[in-house]
Amino acid sequence: MSSTVGVLGGMGPEATLDFFAKLVRQAGARSDHEHVRLLIDNNPGVPDRNAALSGRGESPGPVLAQMARGLQASGADFLVMVCNTAHAFESDILNATTIPFVSLINETRDAVLRGRPGLRRIGLLATSTCLDAGLYQSAFAPSGVRTLALEGDALERFMALLYRIKAGDTGSDVRAQMRALAQELVNLGAEVLVAGCTEVPLVLDAQDVPVPLVNSTDVLVERTLQYARGHAPFPERSVEPSA
Amino acid sequence: MSSTVGVLGGMGPEATLDFFAKLVRQAGARSDHEHVRLLIDNNPGVPDRNAALSGRGESPGPVLAQMARGLQASGADFLVMVCNTAHAFESDILNATTIPFVSLINETRDAVLRGRPGLRRIGLLATSTCLDAGLYQSAFAPSGVRTLALEGDALERFMALLYRIKAGDTGSDVRAQMRALAQELVNLGAEVLVAGCTEVPLVLDAQDVPVPLVNSTDVLVERTLQYARGHAPFPERSVEPSA
Repeated sequence: MSSTVGVLGGMGPEATLDFFAKLVRQAGARSDHEHVRLLIDNNPGVPDRNAALSGRGESPGPVLAQMARGLQASGADFLVMVCNTAHAFESDILNATTIPFVSLINETRDAVLRGRPGLRRIGLLATSTCLDAGLYQSAFAPSGVRTLALEGDALERFMALLYRIKAGDTGSDVRAQMRALAQELVNLGAEVLVAGCTEVPLVLDAQDVPVPLVNSTDVLVERTLQYARGHAPFPERSVEPSA
Repeated sequence: MSSTVGVLGGMGPEATLDFFAKLVRQAGARSDHEHVRLLIDNNPGVPDRNAALSGRGESPGPVLAQMARGLQASGADFLVMVCNTAHAFESDILNATTIPFVSLINETRDAVLRGRPGLRRIGLLATSTCLDAGLYQSAFAPSGVRTLALEGDALERFMALLYRIKAGDTGSDVRAQMRALAQELVNLGAEVLVAGCTEVPLVLDAQDVPVPLVNSTDVLVERTLQYARGHAPFPERSVEPSA
């Protein structure tokens, strides 16, 4: 019997759907009973993460805390959250619960570093809010790997693309623009790219870029299955000051 | 603000994923906040519905009741269940909760009857358990519409297909066999076919059959969005004796 996974989702629903679809496919189950139990709170009403951290809206922290508490009360054995940016509010979730929380940021960092001892520079495809909160920069700091990110006009174009994806537009124009932004990071010297926003993999594939692409959703799917099946010990719980 | 939907799922996970994917796509949302909140209990550990009703396994009733209670406690305003056969245990769910339960069977019946006053015979692509429990037969009885179903060897072939689909096989052979079984019902005189098992639409499309195909998952998606957005009054709660 595998553990029950509590999923904080809906940020956006397409990204949660992508996670769920990949998890079902990669479970390699031959019958219903070999699948993993998921409790998914697909809550598209979580206050906008980007608006909150830039002071233009209410904090999603209390809503995320309430969702996490609800998932634990419903029987979740551990929690994951399908949104990189919302990890800026991880401490609200940790303070509200007592079960393990698997950080998408930390798992993605570990997947990037694994088997790449000489890595010097990575490129972050992440929201301005995720970058401002320093989520990936802090995670990579101890390793000495430099993080490169989009800036200025390029970052604005990236953010505009994300909201088009959330509005259901995953067409060829959006894909071409995302590919071009990824290439800018490669031109700056990125040896590995991190799809550090769960909307990015909806329009960018590994074959679209000339360097390895580490997809945070794929990492979370793989690790969630390992944790649920008891193939990996849960990470330590650490509560840090809220962003 | 729309109502929160509680989803009893995992029977199987592919069918729940299909429901979630269609609901996200059909929400017609232009931003996260225009989507509907879903609490999904994707529980692949629900005891086998077919084994239970044929006396070869434990009843899923208590597990379904527990899931329903959990969804209500987590804030669901109404419940849906993405499995036709499990509706044989609807009374366990109704007895365990106080919020509306939207019956996949009744909604599919209503979708079949709507706009078809002269309808005489429908063909049911449904599990042997769903048929033995008489779920669709009872639902259609007041309308006078006759229900035709697969029998004997054809029904056995249908059941074998479902377990292949649950094992992840949605390939061309499974599709061809499902199409042939659908055609058998048309040959018997079915004027409309009902995909009355949530695995069926994973391998059968409207263009595969020469008569209208009413897909129970599609019906549930459409109606769930209407109920969640307050565009339809909830059905009356009726507790009937457990199957």
